[in-house]
Amino acid sequence: MKKILLQLLLCISFMGYSQDYTTYVNPFIGTTNYGATNPGAIAPRGMVSVVPFNTSGEGNTHEKDQNWVSFPYAYENKIFTGYSHVNLSGVGCPDLGAVILMPTTGELEIDPKKYGSLYSEEKAQAGLYSNHLDKYDVDTKVTATQRSGISKFSFPAGQANILMNLGQALSNESGGMIKVVNDQEIEGMRMVGSFCYNNPKTIYPVYFVMKVNHKAGKVGVWQQHRKIEGIEAQWMSAYNGQQRIIEDAYYPIIGDSLGAYFSYDFEQPTEVEVKIGISYVSIENARENLETEVANVSFDEIAQRSKNNWNDVLSKIDVKGGSNDDKTVFYTALYHSMIHPNVLSDVNGEYPAAKTRKTKITEGERYTVFSLWDTYRNLHQLMTLVYPEQQLNMVNSMLDIYDETGWLPKWELNSTETFTMVGDPAAIVISDTYMRGLDQFDQKKAFEAITKSAYPVDGGNPVRPCIDDYIKYGYIPVEDELDKKLWASVSTSLEYNIADWNIAQFAKKYGDEDKYKEFLARANGYKKLFDKETDFLRPRHKDGTWYSPFDPNHGANFEHNVGYVEGNAYQYNMMVQYDIPGLIKQFGGNKSFTKRLDEIFSTGQYDMANEPDIAYPYAYNYIKGQEYKTQEKVLELREKYFTNQPDGIAGNDDTGTMSAWVVFSMMGIYPDAPGTPQYAMTTPAFDEIKITLNDQFWDNKEVIIKKTGGDSNRIASIKIDGKTIKGYFIQHKDLVKAKEITFVMK
Amino acid sequence: MKKILLQLLLCISFMGYSQDYTTYVNPFIGTTNYGATNPGAIAPRGMVSVVPFNTSGEGNTHEKDQNWVSFPYAYENKIFTGYSHVNLSGVGCPDLGAVILMPTTGELEIDPKKYGSLYSEEKAQAGLYSNHLDKYDVDTKVTATQRSGISKFSFPAGQANILMNLGQALSNESGGMIKVVNDQEIEGMRMVGSFCYNNPKTIYPVYFVMKVNHKAGKVGVWQQHRKIEGIEAQWMSAYNGQQRIIEDAYYPIIGDSLGAYFSYDFEQPTEVEVKIGISYVSIENARENLETEVANVSFDEIAQRSKNNWNDVLSKIDVKGGSNDDKTVFYTALYHSMIHPNVLSDVNGEYPAAKTRKTKITEGERYTVFSLWDTYRNLHQLMTLVYPEQQLNMVNSMLDIYDETGWLPKWELNSTETFTMVGDPAAIVISDTYMRGLDQFDQKKAFEAITKSAYPVDGGNPVRPCIDDYIKYGYIPVEDELDKKLWASVSTSLEYNIADWNIAQFAKKYGDEDKYKEFLARANGYKKLFDKETDFLRPRHKDGTWYSPFDPNHGANFEHNVGYVEGNAYQYNMMVQYDIPGLIKQFGGNKSFTKRLDEIFSTGQYDMANEPDIAYPYAYNYIKGQEYKTQEKVLELREKYFTNQPDGIAGNDDTGTMSAWVVFSMMGIYPDAPGTPQYAMTTPAFDEIKITLNDQFWDNKEVIIKKTGGDSNRIASIKIDGKTIKGYFIQHKDLVKAKEITFVMK
Repeated sequence: MKKILLQLLLCISFMGYSQDYTTYVNPFIGTTNYGATNPGAIAPRGMVSVVPFNTSGEGNTHEKDQNWVSFPYAYENKIFTGYSHVNLSGVGCPDLGAVILMPTTGELEIDPKKYGSLYSEEKAQAGLYSNHLDKYDVDTKVTATQRSGISKFSFPAGQANILMNLGQALSNESGGMIKVVNDQEIEGMRMVGSFCYNNPKTIYPVYFVMKVNHKAGKVGVWQQHRKIEGIEAQWMSAYNGQQRIIEDAYYPIIGDSLGAYFSYDFEQPTEVEVKIGISYVSIENARENLETEVANVSFDEIAQRSKNNWNDVLSKIDVKGGSNDDKTVFYTALYHSMIHPNVLSDVNGEYPAAKTRKTKITEGERYTVFSLWDTYRNLHQLMTLVYPEQQLNMVNSMLDIYDETGWLPKWELNSTETFTMVGDPAAIVISDTYMRGLDQFDQKKAFEAITKSAYPVDGGNPVRPCIDDYIKYGYIPVEDELDKKLWASVSTSLEYNIADWNIAQFAKKYGDEDKYKEFLARANGYKKLFDKETDFLRPRHKDGTWYSPFDPNHGANFEHNVGYVEGNAYQYNMMVQYDIPGLIKQFGGNKSFTKRLDEIFSTGQYDMANEPDIAYPYAYNYIKGQEYKTQEKVLELREKYFTNQPDGIAGNDDTGTMSAWVVFSMMGIYPDAPGTPQYAMTTPAFDEIKITLNDQFWDNKEVIIKKTGGDSNRIASIKIDGKTIKGYFIQHKDLVKAKEITFVMK
Repeated sequence: MKKILLQLLLCISFMGYSQDYTTYVNPFIGTTNYGATNPGAIAPRGMVSVVPFNTSGEGNTHEKDQNWVSFPYAYENKIFTGYSHVNLSGVGCPDLGAVILMPTTGELEIDPKKYGSLYSEEKAQAGLYSNHLDKYDVDTKVTATQRSGISKFSFPAGQANILMNLGQALSNESGGMIKVVNDQEIEGMRMVGSFCYNNPKTIYPVYFVMKVNHKAGKVGVWQQHRKIEGIEAQWMSAYNGQQRIIEDAYYPIIGDSLGAYFSYDFEQPTEVEVKIGISYVSIENARENLETEVANVSFDEIAQRSKNNWNDVLSKIDVKGGSNDDKTVFYTALYHSMIHPNVLSDVNGEYPAAKTRKTKITEGERYTVFSLWDTYRNLHQLMTLVYPEQQLNMVNSMLDIYDETGWLPKWELNSTETFTMVGDPAAIVISDTYMRGLDQFDQKKAFEAITKSAYPVDGGNPVRPCIDDYIKYGYIPVEDELDKKLWASVSTSLEYNIADWNIAQFAKKYGDEDKYKEFLARANGYKKLFDKETDFLRPRHKDGTWYSPFDPNHGANFEHNVGYVEGNAYQYNMMVQYDIPGLIKQFGGNKSFTKRLDEIFSTGQYDMANEPDIAYPYAYNYIKGQEYKTQEKVLELREKYFTNQPDGIAGNDDTGTMSAWVVFSMMGIYPDAPGTPQYAMTTPAFDEIKITLNDQFWDNKEVIIKKTGGDSNRIASIKIDGKTIKGYFIQHKDLVKAKEITFVMK
């Protein structure tokens, strides 16, 4: 029996992939230059990531309390203060970065400012991170399952301490409860939330249970007394506002700055394993997650399983050719596209319902972290193509959120709506998914949901502010009915246009011709904002006059701007992907359009670091004879901004959106127009790309993209199953029933 | 069946006491002049009291944040901000005063500074308090069982709100968790502790469950964001440090300043009942306490039960004669002696073990709030005589604390040791109880426990600091071995002397002659501190020289002092109750002793407001021919300091110690020398006092104290069962087997 088990384990350990894809994952990519990714250990779509928290230590470049730092880890930072167990990857606002586990040696020290350590020998791969803490001579290694983090600390002989710090966090929320259950277990919760500060009511607890495989010699908690002023303070001066260590406290302690510790006196060097289960439902569920996922399994076995899980996921796209760096950029980007959205539901299916946080049970997985203004542009298209079962779960999660709150999500985070960014992106994601033929969800409910947010609602429409004006004027004017100046009027109008165009597509396919016409008409609204004198989509007043003075440069680099959000007039100039031919007409024809597009690239107006202009390089494909510029620009951008370096993502990864851009771009296909089930084509980065398709949803089991012919980057022709196609687009339905797409290079 | 039940209830409602003793309880006595009692509703020895919290409102005389305020209620204050559900009575440090329930009307307001209300029509009786909130036109009434508080609010038509505020409290600790369970139930916990700030580690949660008999129309919680500084603060300026109301939040919220609310829209005036169960073990236990004690019982029935319970307790001493005010002073004092110690264990017997707070199960009741430096002097003697079953529970609770922590309590509060005041009072309480013949406890353990704290211990003796010096020198010198000046050296020496004398008595009766001798010798240590030049017990150096300059006046009114705590040389001059004859010899005889005693009273050195000199008036009984002065002084003090007025307690009631003084003094018997099972006698305040004795412990079922003869306050003779006794003392054993003690007055 034992032998069979061992063989089985060996089978699992060496599952027959054609290559070990995880060797091409470099989790350090994006960990500086505001990529906001981290090298922590995480399972695909894990609720938990175990991240070396290094953004709170004096001497760091990025210090969370002295800067706008939205990431728990920065490559250039030096001071490690522990492993945070709930984290966001690639986002632009600080939140989570909590439940921080820190190993130390020697006398107990509970102040992170004092116990922080320099580190070295840092290594990371998919699902595994390790370093050496110089101050303590401790080797640390961490891995993760979806809902649990596992750490292995190699302590020298002598006193060792394991700290669970609930005070420190990246989140600016505070408050936690901690309880030492026994000399091997700690449980608690920690408040997090208010991401991006648009919706200060969105605060909520994250729950955890921590188990250690050694009995602690000493246990205790610490809690800082809230400093008070006045007469009382005179009496309590000895500890007013001070930290207090309470030994042998086996009961819950609540506070803002608190934690618990286990201390050991090791006679010889000792390895200690710490397992932490997380839940957003309850401590009980955190314990059940831990028990189910990692109880009685060693660190090494969990690390191996994590690697296998990553290989499982990454192997769905098998590439041949290309440099090692190319492969690393590609698979790391694919890895980054598998972090968010992540699972929110516990192993027992329970999750906190959106808004009320009442406990509900999901069928399938309930996903969370929907940064939809970003991800509607390409990440969900990647999921639809390669991981349709995940995309279906995402759509169903969005529909569940609609059931729970009455509204589809916008920027959903752990069942809160953060109302970050503008537009109505859920309608786009759902329609795009539907249009690509992934339609095994409740279409009736979906149609109801996407149309609901498209109309004014008594008491206000939280998804689409200014929807009344938008309908009344056909665009969002610069000022509201009370003449109060609005913000991002052009950007918001364009986002509503895109959503409306998507709703129109859904309506047509769904058989609602009236709605199709109504929303198609709305989608043309962008034309009312097109100023033919400047060839820009320009802020416009209620009375139809243009907003002046107008500076198309203003708005770049996150300048607050009346017309645009996170961009300027250039960066929104072509954000009408669903109707580039129509936009070209506004420009007065191909020549004028091409000129502006060229200008944007040549004058540095193109911003690879943000979403509005992300599809611009593919716009050349709409102009006969200019398609080679798509090939040229995409290669340039890839090589400049996406590298096998810590700064290898241009700005926030935006929960995988930037990564999805490069994954698609390196495969030679890009879903340039959400809602239009097509891919714009460009030169693939590899000689051969085999995409495994899920034949439960698509006709074929796989499709191969091949690059043949000359060595240049210039495409001579494109063939589908041997037949040369016209133009530089492929329909999704054609892709998933093709056997081979061949790029013949010049 | 129904009929029988009804009759039973009627029987309970009108149990045949010879009088309704609760009509003589005036809970307003002691609620000003730093008596620190409160008029809230409480059951005998209740864990819960429902107290009108009025010490946090602008315009109050005693404002908790602008003063050293150790009470949740002050008679002269004006602003009511709710009912606090855990409170201390008659103590000198601020703590508890938490879990505050507030009814309001109109728009929801969550800031106590704004929602506080003037009140009128204030009434209080044992177990019942009511008032009218002027601002809201709401009548409020509260009553309590041992572990639950019940409130009835009579709201006018319109919007009504019930607030559970976990931010505000008398305690300077902060931090709470609150969760709206459903539209009729809220649960949570709140940190309290660090009483008197001697032991900042003694913080712990109190748990509660609140149920309302009306479904709320709106529910929500509020939580204040912790204000942060720096760059982040610029982004979050809109709500940085601000309160946030989160509607429909059915999940735990943690914070420093937080609460939850239920709002109603009443079409007509409506009575709402709110029941709150408390526990120091868990939320589950708080719910079980509530369910067991008050579920399905109306407010009025609970109030009636509470009254019956009080009559049960108060009827144990039935007095005849005396004015209405005399009776009110007497029964209110008896009432105040039945508040602390109070029950800590839940209805299921569970309680948090001392120090570790691990859940344990008690047999009998587990008591808490042992302010032993105060109560060893008379309160426990009152319990031993009239409520021996309670006193036995108290001794057993103290022995359990010894089991749990290795040490007997000193000033125990909710299973924490606050280390307030000096000495080793537990040894005295246990020995005194034993010496009076109430010995149905584990004597072996008790002897072990009281002797343990009497010796130096590796790592330090937490009960008796300076025990080494005390043994080495026979007294505690002014400075320690490192020449660091000590504090309260005389007071602490004297307390150790008293404890040692008690241990000697225990040892003798227990049969340990060696220990008897050893501790008796120690008890004579006071003689080494007696300075025959000044006739004071005076601070002394290690080398035997006296501490100079010496001002016997210094130390009164809580001045910090090298020799004494909460007193000066006069107030400690006679604190050798166990050996007044020996002390008289130190003075050089009766004359000198009497002269000093007279001087203390005539020059205002006698402090009725604190414990060290509390037995002085009875010292005259030791001097033949001077006994009349006991009768004179006790009457004077009673009439001056103990009145049927809010200021009718002289200073802190000290968890019933001052009250026990007047209870005994009005019965004509006073346990002047703890450890000596006797009572010093003085003129009773009533014509007849019938004490019901528990014949499970004492020979008789009752003993009657009668006053006969002339109208003066001067005793002519005292008879026990008709036989005139010599002197002015009666032994406990004689009292409990007597039928009648007769005071024949001149």
